Amino acid sequence: MALVVQKYGGTSVANIEKIENVARRVINTKEAGNEVVVVVSAMAGETDRLIDLAHSASEKPNEREYDALISTGEQVTVSLLAITLNKMGYKARSFLGHQVKIVTDEAHNKARILSVDTKTINDELKKGTVVVVAGFQGIDPEGNITTLGRGGSDTSAVALAAALQADICEIYTDVDGIYTTDPDICPKARKLKKICYEEMLEMASAGAKVLHPRSVELAKKYGVPVQVRSSVNDNGGTLVTKEDKEMEKVVVSGVTYDRDQAKVTIVRVPDRPGIAARLFTPLSDQNIIVDMIIQNASIEGYTDLTFTVSKKDIVDVKKMLEIAAQDIGAEKVEFDENISKVSIVGVGMRSHAGVASRMFATLAKEGINILMISTSEIKISCVIETKYTELAVMALHDAFKLEKEG
Amino acid sequence: MALVVQKYGGTSVANIEKIENVARRVINTKEAGNEVVVVVSAMAGETDRLIDLAHSASEKPNEREYDALISTGEQVTVSLLAITLNKMGYKARSFLGHQVKIVTDEAHNKARILSVDTKTINDELKKGTVVVVAGFQGIDPEGNITTLGRGGSDTSAVALAAALQADICEIYTDVDGIYTTDPDICPKARKLKKICYEEMLEMASAGAKVLHPRSVELAKKYGVPVQVRSSVNDNGGTLVTKEDKEMEKVVVSGVTYDRDQAKVTIVRVPDRPGIAARLFTPLSDQNIIVDMIIQNASIEGYTDLTFTVSKKDIVDVKKMLEIAAQDIGAEKVEFDENISKVSIVGVGMRSHAGVASRMFATLAKEGINILMISTSEIKISCVIETKYTELAVMALHDAFKLEKEG
Repeated sequence: MALVVQKYGGTSVANIEKIENVARRVINTKEAGNEVVVVVSAMAGETDRLIDLAHSASEKPNEREYDALISTGEQVTVSLLAITLNKMGYKARSFLGHQVKIVTDEAHNKARILSVDTKTINDELKKGTVVVVAGFQGIDPEGNITTLGRGGSDTSAVALAAALQADICEIYTDVDGIYTTDPDICPKARKLKKICYEEMLEMASAGAKVLHPRSVELAKKYGVPVQVRSSVNDNGGTLVTKEDKEMEKVVVSGVTYDRDQAKVTIVRVPDRPGIAARLFTPLSDQNIIVDMIIQNASIEGYTDLTFTVSKKDIVDVKKMLEIAAQDIGAEKVEFDENISKVSIVGVGMRSHAGVASRMFATLAKEGINILMISTSEIKISCVIETKYTELAVMALHDAFKLEKEG
Repeated sequence: MALVVQKYGGTSVANIEKIENVARRVINTKEAGNEVVVVVSAMAGETDRLIDLAHSASEKPNEREYDALISTGEQVTVSLLAITLNKMGYKARSFLGHQVKIVTDEAHNKARILSVDTKTINDELKKGTVVVVAGFQGIDPEGNITTLGRGGSDTSAVALAAALQADICEIYTDVDGIYTTDPDICPKARKLKKICYEEMLEMASAGAKVLHPRSVELAKKYGVPVQVRSSVNDNGGTLVTKEDKEMEKVVVSGVTYDRDQAKVTIVRVPDRPGIAARLFTPLSDQNIIVDMIIQNASIEGYTDLTFTVSKKDIVDVKKMLEIAAQDIGAEKVEFDENISKVSIVGVGMRSHAGVASRMFATLAKEGINILMISTSEIKISCVIETKYTELAVMALHDAFKLEKEG
């Protein structure tokens, strides 16, 4: 008998019919002899409806109250799923953040889980109950309702799996696993049977949207095996797990891209200590995530500073930087929204030479100019013009023979 | 400085604009130097939407889960009101049943409040916070979410007022007080400045729908003064309070009617011990409320048994009684849905003779036949044909001079 944590996203519980499908899947898992804990998101569109309500009440809604409001979405779904399971003849109980003490820090709208009280859940599991837990929400130590931020239900599921020492955490979604690249733009894309946490993290941060990066970090920290599966078919899915020897043999596991990038260059920055801090602190204060940062070698006491941000932040960044750049005596600021980031990811890179040069050569052969380069231990990213995105992805997928297994 | 508990119903918080109106009213009360606790219902229509969802998942939804589902309606409103108050520059915090420990019994869908932990609320009030509490909901001793049944937010407000020893509990609604009768059918209806708990209870049970009877019972038990007011104007409203000498001078305070009644007669029931129990137990098991019960004197070992139920229950009652009547050897069961109950209510009745006879004479003068009579210490009810309802109400209102104060 295994303990299985299953998570179903908003599209999988979008209406009563789909909730009945989820219930059938849960029952199948239970009937196969497993204990089941189910984590569900709000019905598709519901969280957005609640967010709209909050914003129609106030442009900047109080964060504590905003969390109390939007957490109702998951409460509706857990009750409906429990009602459905009961109707189908199975014991089921819904639990909210305050009922199973999913304690988080006090950072409303982006809280982090600190602890989960497993006693109530274990007691129910022993009675044969299907335990249905609201994703995305918790309570802070004072009992205020908190939410974990977008994609937080994945994190809830992994946190519960870790706390309960579950045998597996299954994440049901609208794709049936992790692919070597986006099948929509590359028909040769192949579903991976396995991927390690590190690769998954790099792929997520490089643009793959299947799993929320925080949930992968948590899974990695506690060694929770995560199976990404489709809620509409019975295909095998992809197991996200610890790195093993086999994985290292594969140089590159995936190619990702991110069109939601904009490039900012501050030209002729006086090269003095503290300059970078003065430029980037106002951005981080506004929660603007800066991705790649490149500073050229200084020439005659001046340097150029280039970085990328999400396209949605570009208006705010323009406002802030035009002031900051003047303050520090830089010549000007240039913006380019016409870019993409293309990345290759793989733990095998660590032990294989020549991966970067093969990437650059592949892009060069296609006549694609590289605007920025950034590397990590298991990822190489190149910023290119947006119009070359698909071409680059397909060329790299071919160059690293990703259509073939192993 | 007074402590004021205010309750706003679903129509008063039906949309953001109306919630802003409520917020302004709360702020006015606060600015007048009071501490304010606000209890709100779900936005009009929201509870029905959630009930529909539950019933689309199951014909007979699990009661625990049903409560978890429908309690989200109030959670949405308290957060929106707190967001709005914060936006307007006032400290406000929303609280749910589990956060201020509104502990109830375990009777899901119709739970009764056992206790309220006032510490959190008092701490917030001391800080100058407007405390916004979700009506209609509580938790049982195990932490399961319970709801109090329709009209339960009135009960929540009175329970909070009692626990906090508030100076007044204001119930804002879409009428501006308690009238001597329904102004829609009797233009001479007059708003009462004061009414005592007992009269209010009898009027509520006799068809007046302004206050939920359970909230009046609770107010009576703890001596909470309740002011019924309009949320759309500043008229004075009606104070529901302890009986005083002045009230006793008034023989009749109000005339009520209830068209939602059906009459059931079981003809030639063998007059043996236990027969009534055998007839009524199946009805109470199904939560069908039997109002007036009349049993005639037994003739030759047989009697006729007549009672009234709500029209909505008549289908179920028919099914149950046709079996039960056969079981006990009664001749037949007759049903009449074409009836109304008209009642006069007043604490003055206790010390004034001839009230009943004046009522009967008034109806007789109008040619209205009385089908059933039932009396309590401060109420006389007559069942008549539905078509005479308005005529009877107006005639009684005139006969007892209710258009004149005192």
